[in-house]
Order: sequence, then C-alpha cells, then structure tokens
Amino acid sequence: MKKQHDSIRPIVWQDDHLELLDQRVLPHSYKILEYTDVHEVADAIRDMIVRGAPAIGITAAYGIVLAARQRYAENSGAWKETIQADLDYLAASRPTAVNLFWAIDRMKRCISTINGEPVSPLLAEAIAIHEEDIAANYRMGELGAELIEPGSSVLTHCNAGALATGGYGTALGVIRSAYAQGKIKEVHADETRPWLQGSRLTAWELIQDGIPVTLNADGAAAWLMKQGKIDWVIVGSDRIAANGDVANKIGTYNLAVAAKHHGVKFMVVAPTSTIDMSVASGDEIPIETRESSELLDLNGNQIAAEGATAWNPVFDVTPVEIIEAIVTEKGTINKPDQFKMRKLMEDKL
Amino acid sequence: MKKQHDSIRPIVWQDDHLELLDQRVLPHSYKILEYTDVHEVADAIRDMIVRGAPAIGITAAYGIVLAARQRYAENSGAWKETIQADLDYLAASRPTAVNLFWAIDRMKRCISTINGEPVSPLLAEAIAIHEEDIAANYRMGELGAELIEPGSSVLTHCNAGALATGGYGTALGVIRSAYAQGKIKEVHADETRPWLQGSRLTAWELIQDGIPVTLNADGAAAWLMKQGKIDWVIVGSDRIAANGDVANKIGTYNLAVAAKHHGVKFMVVAPTSTIDMSVASGDEIPIETRESSELLDLNGNQIAAEGATAWNPVFDVTPVEIIEAIVTEKGTINKPDQFKMRKLMEDKL
Repeated sequence: MKKQHDSIRPIVWQDDHLELLDQRVLPHSYKILEYTDVHEVADAIRDMIVRGAPAIGITAAYGIVLAARQRYAENSGAWKETIQADLDYLAASRPTAVNLFWAIDRMKRCISTINGEPVSPLLAEAIAIHEEDIAANYRMGELGAELIEPGSSVLTHCNAGALATGGYGTALGVIRSAYAQGKIKEVHADETRPWLQGSRLTAWELIQDGIPVTLNADGAAAWLMKQGKIDWVIVGSDRIAANGDVANKIGTYNLAVAAKHHGVKFMVVAPTSTIDMSVASGDEIPIETRESSELLDLNGNQIAAEGATAWNPVFDVTPVEIIEAIVTEKGTINKPDQFKMRKLMEDKL
Repeated sequence: MKKQHDSIRPIVWQDDHLELLDQRVLPHSYKILEYTDVHEVADAIRDMIVRGAPAIGITAAYGIVLAARQRYAENSGAWKETIQADLDYLAASRPTAVNLFWAIDRMKRCISTINGEPVSPLLAEAIAIHEEDIAANYRMGELGAELIEPGSSVLTHCNAGALATGGYGTALGVIRSAYAQGKIKEVHADETRPWLQGSRLTAWELIQDGIPVTLNADGAAAWLMKQGKIDWVIVGSDRIAANGDVANKIGTYNLAVAAKHHGVKFMVVAPTSTIDMSVASGDEIPIETRESSELLDLNGNQIAAEGATAWNPVFDVTPVEIIEAIVTEKGTINKPDQFKMRKLMEDKL
C-alpha cells in the first residue's frame, strides 16, 4: 500500500483498456478495476469509483475512446452518429462537475476532425487532456504556494488531491508544494461527511507523502479557527461560475462562512477547465442530491434510527465575495470578481 | 422498540438499584444496564452509556445513593469521610457538563444534614433532582414554544432530548411542545459527528413521538440555512457561563456562526442547574477532548486512513452575542448578557 505520490494515479490507460482505482474501498483496499465499455465507465463515474472534477473529465475522455472503438467496429460508416448516445449517457452520469462536460465537448471537437480510424486520434486527445491536467496541477501548486506565508497552518475539505485529478492534485497540490518549501506547519482536514473523502482519501494521500495530517469532525472546523489555528482554508472546485462563485463538496460553504467570520483566508484551486463561463453565477449551477443512504448507512450498516429521512445535497456554492484567491494554471486571481474572471479566461483564449 | 416519549427514561431507580439505558447501542439495540456500585456508575458516565448534561447530574445523584449504602454498611461511623473518594471519582468522570458538579454539591449538602441511616434521605434527594428536572423540561418546553412562530422550521444539534435529561428534553422539549401546538413545519437535525447523537438518538426519539425528522451532514447546515429553510436553531447546553457564553456539543459554535451569517435565530434551552455563575465567561469552561478513535473508527471498524491523527474536542463555546434567547425553567432571557443572567439567577435564589 506504500506508494509515492507520483505513483498515485487514479486513472491509467493500459494498452487497450482503462484502469480505475476503486475509491469506494480506499484506504482499506487498493483495487484496480478494468474497463473496455463506455457504459461501464459512465456507471463508474456515477457510482464514485472515480470522483473529483478533473478526474471525472479525464475518465470521460478515455471512455469516449472506448465508445469510438466499439461504434467504429460495429459500423465504421455511422460511428459519429451512433456514438452520440454514448456521449449522452456519459454526460448524464453526474451533473455538477463541469469538467465532465468540458472533456466531452473537447472530445466532440476532436471527433469532428476525424476521417477514418478514430481510436488513435481520440486516444491522443484523451492523453493530452490527462497530461495537461497533471501539468496544470504542478503549476497551480507553485502559484498557490506563493500565497502562503512560512509557518502557516492550513485546513482542507474533501479530497482535491492526486485521486481527484490526473495526479498531484489541486488543493493538495498547493499543500504538497508549500509543504515541500517548508512553509506549512500543520495540515488539518475535515473528515468530510457523508463520504469521508477527508478521512479516507486525503489522509491516505498525505500520509504516503510523509505529510502529517490531523482530521477533525466537519462541525469542529469553526472551533478550530476560533483557536487561531488556521491561516488558510484550501479547497478544490467542481464548477466555478463566470462571476467566481464556487461549487464544491457540501460543507465548503460552511467552511467559507466560518473562515470569513474568523478572518481566515480562503483559497480555491482549480484548472480553467473547471470554470464555466456559461453560468453567470452559482445560482445557475445544478447541485447534485444523492441517496439518503449515504448519510443513514455506513459500509452497508444502518447508523441512523429507522424511519429517519435525510437531505443529502453533495455540493454547495460559496459566493465569490468570501474567496480570497482563485488559483488556476493560467494565474492567480486575488479577490476574484466577474471582471477578473473574464479577463483571465479571455487571456487564455 | 415503539415507546411513547413519556416512557423514554434513560435513568430509572428500580427498587434497590439504578438502571441506565445504554445509549452507546441505540437505536439498534434497546439495552438496560443495572448498577449497584458507584464506581461502575462513574465509569458509565465516562463511557457515555448515559450522556447529556442533566442526565449526567441525575445519574451522579443516584450513584451517591449507592455509594452511601456501601460506605455506611462498611463502617456506619465513618461513611461521611469514606464517601469522599467516591464523590471525587464521580466528579472526575467528565469535565464539561456542570450539572455533574451541581448534583454532587447538592447531594453533599444533603449528606451534611444526615444523622443516622443515609439511604432514605439521599434517595429522596436524588428523586427530587430527577423529578425537578423533568418538571423543568416541561416548563422550558412551554416557554421556548412561545418564541416560535407558526409555520417555523427548526434545526437541532446533538441530542438534548429525553435521553439527555430526566425525561422530555430541553431543546427537544421545546420542539415537542411547539410541534404539539402545530407551530413547527419541519424538524431538521445535524447527524452530529463523531458520536452521531443526531442520527442515532434525536431521530429515534422524535420518530417515536411521530415527529418527522430530516437529518443532514453537519457540514450541510449552513447550506440549509442559505436555502431559507431554517427559522430557529435550538440546542441544549452542558454549561453556561455567568456572561451567557454557552458550552455545548462540538459543532454548536459552527452552527451559531452560520446562523448569525444568515439571520437565523439561535435558542439555547437549559435548566438553571446548567448555569455556572463561578465561571465569568466561556474561556474558563474546561473543554473535554476525547479519544481520536471516536473519529477514526466507527463501530469498532477503522474508517480513516492508517496513520492519520484526529483532533476531537467534544464541546465548544458559543459566545453570548450570537444567542437570541436562553430558555430556563425560571424564565426566558432574550438577547442575554451578564446582567440579565445575574438577575435571573438572583431572582432564583
């Protein structure tokens, strides 16, 4: 189970198939699942075998390679039509992370340029998406670390690490880079109910890198800030609206409100593929609600009283006003707003 | 397992022994444990077989009856000296809930008046403490319900119900009374990590009363408030300082900060036995930290990554400025402060 962070790769294209690290069973089991069918890939996204906005996008890209291979083999003249159902099925897997739709769109543009055999060019595009994501994470790691003063203590939420991306991580990329520079004194992580991404995934990743991590109940975060123990909250994102509002794992908004109350700075780290200029504000971002069993049961055992119901939105939206910095691979936006967001994205285009 | 709330009694003196409902195994098992030894009673408090500030105080009072019986039988001339070690052992069981020390002090005053056989007068005093607590809860239920407008939705944290008291409950007493009056539209409850008092105990109690309850992850509470879905947060307390600062289950402060941010009103319901005029402010209240295994494991199974550590303070302090009302059996303090607190307690004396 001991692995260097460079080898934490949740998504691997292996010869002729896709391999996903099953994140449902981490950290207790390290299980690799193999995929040759796009529908099974979409189901893996929906079932959270792979999760994290950038990782979902990369997985979908590889899924489209599998779809093209199947459809082209079935009918080489009609594959561009028949693959549409597969793209739709992939797009329906999860609603909030925009990286999924971004990756599907990018692969669609690639499809439109193909004459003849589609697997080679589509695989090259999927690999490019994957490698660009890893490069973006290293770049964001550098940029985010620049914001952190030596001796800082940081708090993260959910898992925005290697497991949520192509590798290295967004929020955890910044923490890794700043820690390597000796700037970070303590790393705290919310356990992140209901799925426990903090306890299961973030702690696992950081411990493998030799970075000590202290977990806390999500409800304890404000009290931790009250002790003066946190300088920065650092999180990833599933979708950033044109005005800079940030959708991320449920509990992020709660942290942002507490951070604001205590004068703790709040950093969002996400590649520009997470920015959705087509939604004006966070109000327009669809928020996925998942089964109440995620809260009422744990590992298949009921933990809540019989007859209780649960409200289980798995994302929330943090308004841009509370955010100190959004770090992307194209640069850092301090005190973001809609004008700075537009400028960043136009410079990028 | 179906019981009316009037029959939810976590603490029962039965003939010659004390019976405690094992709250560690609720709601999946309904198990009554019997006690004849004060050290076992103290251990039951420390191990959270019984929990909730008023319930701890009542349990300690009955424990002192058992201690007196043992010590008097051992040496009827020296029992008032030999029982001191038992009182100290009881006092060391949990540090935050002041009701424990309040009950021990009240029983000590009773001890000082006894000549001869101690069991009858001490049992009468313990029963009085128990019955006064239940009566206080019904009174607080009425007073708290007066504050609630018809059509309100409320959110509670942890369990401040029949299980945490002699019966009926503090925060849940108010919710029961207001619900019975038709004033409450929806009851929401934080699951309350790490011990899941919300999912396990509060949900169980309310469902038995036919009051529907919707659970949420603790980190989702601010997002719930953002939807405009909550009018009142209603909680109990383990200790209230002379200035009105409130110690309560970890996560309460987080809720209070979120409530303030959203203009949601915050009500604390506690008997005057929870008010500690000897501590000027919340800064002086000792906050218990419990084993990290409460966060890292669940039902004996490890849930967090191997090697992770955890910070597990089980209470926090909400500053009086955020609190809209403190409801006691002696009356309601709106917008509490140190002067109003002193007046309430002096009127009481």
